[in-house]
Amino acid sequence: MNATATVLDSQQLLIHWQGHRNLTRRVIEAFPEKDLFEFSIGGMRPFSKLTLELLAIGGPALKSIVEKNTEAYDEEAFNPTTRAEILAKWDEETEVINEYFSQITEERFQETFNLFGQYEFPVYQNILYFVDNEIHHRGQGYVYLRALGIEPPFFWERER
Amino acid sequence: MNATATVLDSQQLLIHWQGHRNLTRRVIEAFPEKDLFEFSIGGMRPFSKLTLELLAIGGPALKSIVEKNTEAYDEEAFNPTTRAEILAKWDEETEVINEYFSQITEERFQETFNLFGQYEFPVYQNILYFVDNEIHHRGQGYVYLRALGIEPPFFWERER
Repeated sequence: MNATATVLDSQQLLIHWQGHRNLTRRVIEAFPEKDLFEFSIGGMRPFSKLTLELLAIGGPALKSIVEKNTEAYDEEAFNPTTRAEILAKWDEETEVINEYFSQITEERFQETFNLFGQYEFPVYQNILYFVDNEIHHRGQGYVYLRALGIEPPFFWERER
Repeated sequence: MNATATVLDSQQLLIHWQGHRNLTRRVIEAFPEKDLFEFSIGGMRPFSKLTLELLAIGGPALKSIVEKNTEAYDEEAFNPTTRAEILAKWDEETEVINEYFSQITEERFQETFNLFGQYEFPVYQNILYFVDNEIHHRGQGYVYLRALGIEPPFFWERER
């Protein structure tokens, strides 16, 4: 019995997250362009809006954590009208995430940080939240695709 | 720069997972009984079937990891017909997960294990997969609830 074993290191968590981001990218690609921006179920946001939320969190949040900046989160800064714009921004943010994630020092993961001036939690919890939130919204995207008669990518496909 | 910082310990991962399980329990409770077993979108499984998958993974998988048993996974063993039965089993498995998770020794998280004789990955990856898979399917449940005109629980509500 060892209740405080180390589970994974930060590089492994980064790889895990980027694997999920590769899958989310595939889901964005699977949507017909019109449906990406318009299709919804039960009054929920279309999948494009969900991806804009993810883009407003990942890279900007890591930059804030590294720079200890508690500025509010801004989902309005990027207003794409095509799938290609979203995918290009997705790839840009992949690099931003890689750059800033590696600058989070060991002691920071257990330190509390007031992310976006609003979410005051240990850094490891904030980062797990980004990944969980992405999986959650992407799961919604899977239902949209199925409702549109489109086969989503396999959940376990994480390679670029 | 510290690319191999420790992110979280096993007790923190257990608390994180059980928080997600508390939320999933709330989603099960939010479904009207008939819809839990029957409602679906785009030919997907009803939410009851998704919860049976989660129940067949969590506790049994941890027990297999601790006992180094590679027996196949069995989703057919439990055939509930009521929401109450599912919730009771959910609570039983909460205890099973607590019991076995704490028996995973530090060195095991980075060791490869052939889970269910089929998923040969480091133990930390197998466990992250259980949590991710739960979030993914629960995200589908959120869409079902919205399509039924039911407000789902807040995503950040993780207390029992």
